[in-house]
Amino acid sequence: MAFSERVSRLKSSLIREILAAAQRPEVMSFAGGLPAEAMLPKVEWADMPVSMGQYGMSEGEPALREALAVQARALGIHCEANQVLVVSGSQQTLDLAAKLYIDKGTEILLEAPTYLAALQIFQLFGADCITVPLQADGPDLAQLRTRLQKHRPAFIYLIPTFQNPSAVRYSEAKRDAVAALLDEFGVTLIEDEPYRELTFDGGSATPIVSRLKKSSWIYTGTVSKTLLPGLRVGYLIASPDLFPHLLRLKQSADLHTNRIGQWQALQWIGTEQYQRHLSELRDFYRVRRDAFQVALETHFSDLAHWNVPQGGLFFWLTLKQPLDTRTLLNAALANDVAFMPGEPFFPEPENHPGHIRLNFSHIDPTRLDEGLKRLAAVVRQAQAAEAA
Amino acid sequence: MAFSERVSRLKSSLIREILAAAQRPEVMSFAGGLPAEAMLPKVEWADMPVSMGQYGMSEGEPALREALAVQARALGIHCEANQVLVVSGSQQTLDLAAKLYIDKGTEILLEAPTYLAALQIFQLFGADCITVPLQADGPDLAQLRTRLQKHRPAFIYLIPTFQNPSAVRYSEAKRDAVAALLDEFGVTLIEDEPYRELTFDGGSATPIVSRLKKSSWIYTGTVSKTLLPGLRVGYLIASPDLFPHLLRLKQSADLHTNRIGQWQALQWIGTEQYQRHLSELRDFYRVRRDAFQVALETHFSDLAHWNVPQGGLFFWLTLKQPLDTRTLLNAALANDVAFMPGEPFFPEPENHPGHIRLNFSHIDPTRLDEGLKRLAAVVRQAQAAEAA
Repeated sequence: MAFSERVSRLKSSLIREILAAAQRPEVMSFAGGLPAEAMLPKVEWADMPVSMGQYGMSEGEPALREALAVQARALGIHCEANQVLVVSGSQQTLDLAAKLYIDKGTEILLEAPTYLAALQIFQLFGADCITVPLQADGPDLAQLRTRLQKHRPAFIYLIPTFQNPSAVRYSEAKRDAVAALLDEFGVTLIEDEPYRELTFDGGSATPIVSRLKKSSWIYTGTVSKTLLPGLRVGYLIASPDLFPHLLRLKQSADLHTNRIGQWQALQWIGTEQYQRHLSELRDFYRVRRDAFQVALETHFSDLAHWNVPQGGLFFWLTLKQPLDTRTLLNAALANDVAFMPGEPFFPEPENHPGHIRLNFSHIDPTRLDEGLKRLAAVVRQAQAAEAA
Repeated sequence: MAFSERVSRLKSSLIREILAAAQRPEVMSFAGGLPAEAMLPKVEWADMPVSMGQYGMSEGEPALREALAVQARALGIHCEANQVLVVSGSQQTLDLAAKLYIDKGTEILLEAPTYLAALQIFQLFGADCITVPLQADGPDLAQLRTRLQKHRPAFIYLIPTFQNPSAVRYSEAKRDAVAALLDEFGVTLIEDEPYRELTFDGGSATPIVSRLKKSSWIYTGTVSKTLLPGLRVGYLIASPDLFPHLLRLKQSADLHTNRIGQWQALQWIGTEQYQRHLSELRDFYRVRRDAFQVALETHFSDLAHWNVPQGGLFFWLTLKQPLDTRTLLNAALANDVAFMPGEPFFPEPENHPGHIRLNFSHIDPTRLDEGLKRLAAVVRQAQAAEAA
């Protein structure tokens, strides 16, 4: 059996295994990134034209591209509808970007930590992953400059607004500084913003791509966190030099994104109804975030430190006494608790022990306290065993 | 700007350009492979559960996988539901297969001609495309054996039932012989069957994968030709040794296929309603095929020869006086006629001049005769010019 060379890098997905284990109804899961079931809006299909059943354009539905361009321009992104490519969830943007840029050994620049599924697909294509550490307000700028001086990355991949997993939101100053550095070194930016609308304090610094003067860029978003993930409708917006290549790669990947999901997304984007839904969503998640913070303080204040997330879906804990948190998984699952170890969010997991990602949006509030109590007990037990 | 090495093989898609030109309403298009708009069934959405809006499993909806396995077993394919992977249109199967098998220079074996979009993605990943010529009842077996003796292809890709573009359907004897050869040489089979249900004479030889005794295999199908292409719901079924790899590649490509389309597909597959729809579809396309054959005989009997397709969506013409049919495109479009030149369906287009692919399913019957008359005139003019 002769597979491609890249298949040797096709890892078993830890998160898949955890999520599979977390399917058991008795498990209290902090592991996934699922929107709360209660906040999935009721949608109408009765008015969808029959023609949405026919093949469509690889670019996406013209009206949806137009609506997405209007929305992006309101964020300060200089773009026209012909720079918008509708994709099958923003995960597909990462697949297209990997195809566009990555050969075996291609250097790329990532935040540490970074989005797990991005790391997986970039590594599958053979990327050599250089990282820049994240601070509370964005990347360490001195280290970013050093990396850019020393390396020639094909692109930098950033999630500047409520990052998964760290919940970090870049400050205005760091956004400006990052844009200036990328322009200075001529590095392409891929900016991933699934969580922008899930802000709890109303803060909304404009995207970094809108601050670039010279560099090429890809901006990607999705309706998965704010409307319905099951539609699998995301989008990318690219600088004109990149768009034609991405379009051809999209066509060869799956011809086009499903049109029924595109039609549904179009019923929402740019409407007052959507604004109302987003507002309800923010209120709902803010309440869950606050309750989670209270429960965390009760059970974890002696074990870990963390920043209170101002948006997104996750708390990112740093254990005061680091250990490889992957070793906690079996004990946690045995106690009917699931969580995401932090190590896999780094290209070199073994160098970054002691982080835990906890999703606060999905857990039943009545089970929150018990779940965190059990998880804290698992951590305590492991630390005691290590000390012994 | 440093793109990946593969981007140098990312060709502009001739078919995209033709289809774009064919958008003008005055153009009589034989170019695409669109199902007839009139035969898109009216579908109901009112009963879809809200939960279909949530994230789903990378494997696909359990009930749909079960229904697809039942359908496949009825065709003689030995499989369980856990070998079924729902994909975002069967084009995605080709993307996953390319990732699984193809490095730069990897030898693969294809029919000549073969499906254009398969060729594009296999070549994008760097495949070295070996071909075996098609005869009216399937591949030339002597040449297939020679290729298998001389090469070690990572897989063979076949479309044995109403192939796009040639409309060839393999005979029972050739299916058996191909299966035996693949087992003998231990070559993996990728069998693509989008057109199986569009049979006009009821003939239904079982898939080649069902005849294999040892080789690994991937079978792929879709609801795009029989239900609604806009759903973007296809599937693959794989031998157990390949499935886990394909599943991980699917996850990294787009997490999972849209669930609303999966739910809709499940409302049809295996039902009597679907059988009635398929029967109406066959009748409708058979009538179109017959009318097309009459018009072809009127205008092309002195220019080309062809076999009457017993299924699928295409006539495949071989000009008696070969010329590069790509050179006819501009003249045809100037006369408001669009068609697909045959050359791009071969890995070495310049070695295979003189074929034309004509779609018979989409053209308005009232414009059919005028369209073929104009196209014949374009061919005649070019041949006269060449002779002069």
